[in-house]
Amino acid sequence: METNSENDSSRRKFIQQTALAGAGLMLAKPMALFAGQNTNTMNTIKSKGYAGKNETGKLVPWNFERRAVGDNDILIEIKYSGICHSDIHTIKGHWGKQQYPQVPGHEIAGIVAAVGKNVTKFKVGDKAGVGCMVNSCLECEPCKHGEEHHCEKGMTGTYGTPETSSPSGITQGGYSNNLVVRDHFAIKIPDNIDLQHAAPLLCSGITTYSPLIKANFNRGDKVGIAGIGGLGHIAIKLAVSKGAEVYAFTTSADKVKDILSFGAKEAVLVDSPEKLAPYRGKLDYMLSTIPYDYDIAAYASVVKPYGTLTQVGVPIGGKVTTNFFDLIFSRVKINASMIGGIPETQEVMDYCADNNLLPNIEIIKASEINDAWDKVVNKQARYRYVIDATTF
Amino acid sequence: METNSENDSSRRKFIQQTALAGAGLMLAKPMALFAGQNTNTMNTIKSKGYAGKNETGKLVPWNFERRAVGDNDILIEIKYSGICHSDIHTIKGHWGKQQYPQVPGHEIAGIVAAVGKNVTKFKVGDKAGVGCMVNSCLECEPCKHGEEHHCEKGMTGTYGTPETSSPSGITQGGYSNNLVVRDHFAIKIPDNIDLQHAAPLLCSGITTYSPLIKANFNRGDKVGIAGIGGLGHIAIKLAVSKGAEVYAFTTSADKVKDILSFGAKEAVLVDSPEKLAPYRGKLDYMLSTIPYDYDIAAYASVVKPYGTLTQVGVPIGGKVTTNFFDLIFSRVKINASMIGGIPETQEVMDYCADNNLLPNIEIIKASEINDAWDKVVNKQARYRYVIDATTF
Repeated sequence: METNSENDSSRRKFIQQTALAGAGLMLAKPMALFAGQNTNTMNTIKSKGYAGKNETGKLVPWNFERRAVGDNDILIEIKYSGICHSDIHTIKGHWGKQQYPQVPGHEIAGIVAAVGKNVTKFKVGDKAGVGCMVNSCLECEPCKHGEEHHCEKGMTGTYGTPETSSPSGITQGGYSNNLVVRDHFAIKIPDNIDLQHAAPLLCSGITTYSPLIKANFNRGDKVGIAGIGGLGHIAIKLAVSKGAEVYAFTTSADKVKDILSFGAKEAVLVDSPEKLAPYRGKLDYMLSTIPYDYDIAAYASVVKPYGTLTQVGVPIGGKVTTNFFDLIFSRVKINASMIGGIPETQEVMDYCADNNLLPNIEIIKASEINDAWDKVVNKQARYRYVIDATTF
Repeated sequence: METNSENDSSRRKFIQQTALAGAGLMLAKPMALFAGQNTNTMNTIKSKGYAGKNETGKLVPWNFERRAVGDNDILIEIKYSGICHSDIHTIKGHWGKQQYPQVPGHEIAGIVAAVGKNVTKFKVGDKAGVGCMVNSCLECEPCKHGEEHHCEKGMTGTYGTPETSSPSGITQGGYSNNLVVRDHFAIKIPDNIDLQHAAPLLCSGITTYSPLIKANFNRGDKVGIAGIGGLGHIAIKLAVSKGAEVYAFTTSADKVKDILSFGAKEAVLVDSPEKLAPYRGKLDYMLSTIPYDYDIAAYASVVKPYGTLTQVGVPIGGKVTTNFFDLIFSRVKINASMIGGIPETQEVMDYCADNNLLPNIEIIKASEINDAWDKVVNKQARYRYVIDATTF
């Protein structure tokens, strides 16, 4: 069956209902009310942040309201918020039509400022973080098995998901000074990690940690990481920390020195496809964070026959053109991965804290967000911009 | 890294050197001489067959010569030759520029008419078959492990591969009355299977058998087969025979009855993409033979999370556009597979003979080839045309 107009229509509808977070999808469940969700319109929380108001991708200051703190909710006073390439893709409408104003941001770290009466997981004053999702049914099989991001009813993304409890009609993300979230979806941030370093772990950390753990490689195995940006640089550190011999593939010559400092065995500058050839069939596993439509089968070819390449970057429209001649020869499997569940997100947070495994960050003011976005698009980030939320 | 002109150029060069057989690539190794290959220009074998003379895809009668029977060769008097969609793709140049005249055909069954002095595997009068390859180095790791189709020096395809020992400069395939082939690459055809039924097993049989065996499913597992043509109908029978509960996906309403007669549990008519939805996440494994650029991720979605879809059909140019939103949700791995090695080809031949597992064939005369090709393209074959080679 070839792609036809009916199929395209179905796809468009699907994409319109969908916004991606990290490599992670925020499936919009229009107006769904999950258990524990607050519909109280009293005592809404006043927030200020930066929002996109259209597809130009320019953010502007915006004052808005969040829902009141419900019985199962916590209020987080945000201290730091990471900038993810997905924020840009989403606000620009690359992954589907959006509702505006919309405050992006799903790498959120702060201090608990209030808790609902049923909350035992947190108390006021605790460090807490929020990643790419803020709700799910918690009753379906995936939810019960810690895969809330694959909730059968659709998870609620941290921003851009239609949501009746939100005064603005959609969830609003972390480029702001506070957040109300159901306690289950907040992550405990250990004492032995700073909030500014914890923030990026909530998306770029979990998005790379989850597939690396599932790859189940052995110490000494050769693991490739393709695309060395916000996700890729943490992926290198995680894989090295887990005992892999890491081969990092980048198109940026000026990242080579950094890559080696992250612990990679080799930094391969792929300024032409031929640069992949010497590595053909050599690696045990490959994780690619490249967020464009690229020659994925050529990158897969560096993996040993019957190995796997996992894609966590998602291009515009989600489409990647794959060459099956190359896949036939390489015998490599390709799959895709989206963030991770709440238990696994807690796991990567604890692991990074315990092992002092930190993202390389640059702290910026709210007024510098638009400039930072341009730099992310132009591959100039080194490696994660983190917004100081006191500047909103 | 995005696809760029340099990359495209590299791809074109690759494709020009390549012709596909079944789902199997015949990597052209221009003018390579493998051990055991005969360069004797004396005693060449006179052959007659049907050849393509250009990319129109119309075949015409052609008299030509094959190399003399070398010390490690056998001469097969062809009795039956199957028609594979790959023959059409190749002659029409869908997978790269071709050299003409070219005789296609890689599902070849006949009687041994002569043997070289070193040959012990066959004697005159034996039944013998040839599939998609006629030579490889037999010295590299893949060759030593029975994966001659992944020979590091490139296997020699049954037709269209540049070949110094061939008087016409390329290998010439099975739409003819005889064939000279290195003994290692000929398959023994057991007494308990007819030549006309054995022929299609040399490509459509092995191409589906190899991935099904590698999938290592258990008895009672749910196995999907997508695209029910020459390959797909044998895949159903093989999977059923190995104990799978088979779900067959077709776009042809008039194949439903046949599909059930092949032993499938269900025949799913995919006349719109929505027809896949009820099967989402239900199957343990999927094998797709669809030879076009189609919505592969939608088909993959019917496999359980972390399962695999194997693609054995190859579209024009080898390109398939994959939607990574769907792959992220389904968590299904996609890979591709090409025919199988010689030991595995012998295995499927013996298995089908022992289990009376036969392809559904329609025997035609040589003069009917062009008409049959049109029917294959128009999905009218039921299910494999086999040419009576006495009519050349």
